[in-house]
Amino acid sequence: MRTTVGIIGAGPAGLLLARLLHNAGIESVVLESRDRAYVERRQRAGILEQGTVDVLRAAGAAERMDREGLRHDGIELRFDRRRHRIDFPALTAGRSVMVYAQTEVCKDLIALQLKEGGPLLFEAEALAVEGAESERPCVRFRYEGREDVLECDYVVGCDGFWGVSRSAVPASLSRVFERTYPFGWLGVLADVPPSHDELVYARHDRGFALLSMRSPSVSRLYLQVPEGTDAEDWSDDEIWAELEQRFETADGWRLDRGPITQKSVTPMRSFVHEPMRHGRLFLAGDAAHIVPPTGAKGLNLAVGDVVTFARALTYEKETGSTELLDAYSETCLRRVWQAERFSYDMTTLLHRAPDATSFEERLQLARLARITSSRAAETDLAEAYTGFPHD
Amino acid sequence: MRTTVGIIGAGPAGLLLARLLHNAGIESVVLESRDRAYVERRQRAGILEQGTVDVLRAAGAAERMDREGLRHDGIELRFDRRRHRIDFPALTAGRSVMVYAQTEVCKDLIALQLKEGGPLLFEAEALAVEGAESERPCVRFRYEGREDVLECDYVVGCDGFWGVSRSAVPASLSRVFERTYPFGWLGVLADVPPSHDELVYARHDRGFALLSMRSPSVSRLYLQVPEGTDAEDWSDDEIWAELEQRFETADGWRLDRGPITQKSVTPMRSFVHEPMRHGRLFLAGDAAHIVPPTGAKGLNLAVGDVVTFARALTYEKETGSTELLDAYSETCLRRVWQAERFSYDMTTLLHRAPDATSFEERLQLARLARITSSRAAETDLAEAYTGFPHD
Repeated sequence: MRTTVGIIGAGPAGLLLARLLHNAGIESVVLESRDRAYVERRQRAGILEQGTVDVLRAAGAAERMDREGLRHDGIELRFDRRRHRIDFPALTAGRSVMVYAQTEVCKDLIALQLKEGGPLLFEAEALAVEGAESERPCVRFRYEGREDVLECDYVVGCDGFWGVSRSAVPASLSRVFERTYPFGWLGVLADVPPSHDELVYARHDRGFALLSMRSPSVSRLYLQVPEGTDAEDWSDDEIWAELEQRFETADGWRLDRGPITQKSVTPMRSFVHEPMRHGRLFLAGDAAHIVPPTGAKGLNLAVGDVVTFARALTYEKETGSTELLDAYSETCLRRVWQAERFSYDMTTLLHRAPDATSFEERLQLARLARITSSRAAETDLAEAYTGFPHD
Repeated sequence: MRTTVGIIGAGPAGLLLARLLHNAGIESVVLESRDRAYVERRQRAGILEQGTVDVLRAAGAAERMDREGLRHDGIELRFDRRRHRIDFPALTAGRSVMVYAQTEVCKDLIALQLKEGGPLLFEAEALAVEGAESERPCVRFRYEGREDVLECDYVVGCDGFWGVSRSAVPASLSRVFERTYPFGWLGVLADVPPSHDELVYARHDRGFALLSMRSPSVSRLYLQVPEGTDAEDWSDDEIWAELEQRFETADGWRLDRGPITQKSVTPMRSFVHEPMRHGRLFLAGDAAHIVPPTGAKGLNLAVGDVVTFARALTYEKETGSTELLDAYSETCLRRVWQAERFSYDMTTLLHRAPDATSFEERLQLARLARITSSRAAETDLAEAYTGFPHD
């Protein structure tokens, strides 16, 4: 089997890349180890930056998003029982974000790819990337019980943190930057209209909480929990009671309860692998970097990576110059590190670290006071939240 | 001996407070444990915020400052051999800072106090504050070989981190917030015109360096050094060579050398004591809080405290209401914690922590990249550097 770009992984990065390449007239094959139902079911992030929205529209993949997605013009910070709204368009010359679940983005892109695009193979497990330093890299994979080889001009690893792509970069050339956090997020889906029409980020002495939504009738709620917590340790009543405490305000805001349909715990990690390119292998999305979910940058970073790659390869096809491909890692990492910084800052701004000193707790409150009293500090946050440019 | 306000300590906080009270027609006595020559000689900070400058002018204590001080409209951040200027007036609607050494401020205030003000006793060592919870607090002190008592309506402790005032707040009511840093500053005075006309804050893989000045002919230079370093371990040549490396730029900027006339090591500490008031005892300046010197907030915070006290007492004299005096601690602490946050952020932005992970190093560079590429982030820094309002 032979193609121009071999794409490992049919998450949002791989699927969007296949779409962008298709639109540019460049062939690709997508290999996905899971089946379609699994990919279309897994719950992930749900906030699309302005730039991500623009890319999906330009790619012709935004029809349902524009119909069903919820445009959000702000978020609320909640602390000390007070509420402070951050008005994105007012602070960023009109930018906003879109609430539209990653899983819905994937469904839309899968449907488009199967209808119009090149091959998208489910249950095709990539085993290894070989020859990354050669002119003809390939992906060995298992499909329908047999081993096969996908020969490519370029391989893009969109196979997530646990995928095989990253291991094809020799350890001697790799540098890993990492931070783990001593807490995670217990996330629930609940069949109840969201109690607030924008996301609420709450800093509370008992820990962080986030109110989000999947649709006008489905709430998505999160609680900071200690590392290693089992979601089953929390009864639905305990979850609601804890959420009520953490979201409590002086003005009597109320949290509406409803049936919890799903619950799970997400660990928190910051991770960057440098470089993001080795020869003709390019890493994109979680294969190269992980952010903690505070600030919702994971999906948006993946989109930035594949946009950068698609532009660079299109440029090479049009001009013969590999200049942009050669700059891929550096170009992406500038944006990646800004997102890492922002995600780290949002995480430390809002979570209670079990080992925090009283000095650090006061610093945290001083940071919140600063953001909610200085237009400059608030703008800094709003700019980062609505997204860094795809340069 | 009897007065309205007993002031312990003739640093900038105590001296300015005596001046502000004198101007408001309120009596005070200042007790200073050292002799005048010592007070006029000790080297401290040298950057006056816009608000501090305004206060000194309004107090009639700015004549020499306005003649000899150097107005600075910006600072330079230096990292990766690159230079980035932060333009204060452009970012903060006209605010700037004044380079005028704390020791000169003290000389000016001492001269005014001895000429026009109430008693200012040198070599008068405060031993204890007593009766802070009563209507008639007093200061026991030793002067000219005898113990004496200064009876007051109010006592203001301006006696620095090592002074006796703070210990008069019962431990059961005190809360201390603290952070130490595993490095200090080796500071030198050199008889050479400063090599740059604004302050240069340099982040380098070898550690932080700061170029500052005392006058057009005297440079003040600092090097980050490991905690516990003895200034005598560094020869003058070693100091200059290290400074040259840390200030190096791609555009060939040169550091001029000259005779080093003084060198010493300052430890770095963040410290806040809450509350800042107990009964009729009020703590001001370093007696209540310490910041690391990065960002030059120490003197300016002290000024903010005594302005707040002088206003509150004047208000009480005029209206009979103790409302502002009662709010003293809370009012000051809002500003104090913003300065603590800023000083901590500037310190961690620019210093190399010996135990920093590679992830934290990349974060540091991402923060510098953010400040130098986002007007909002840059404005946030410029606002904090030029100073928080005296509210």
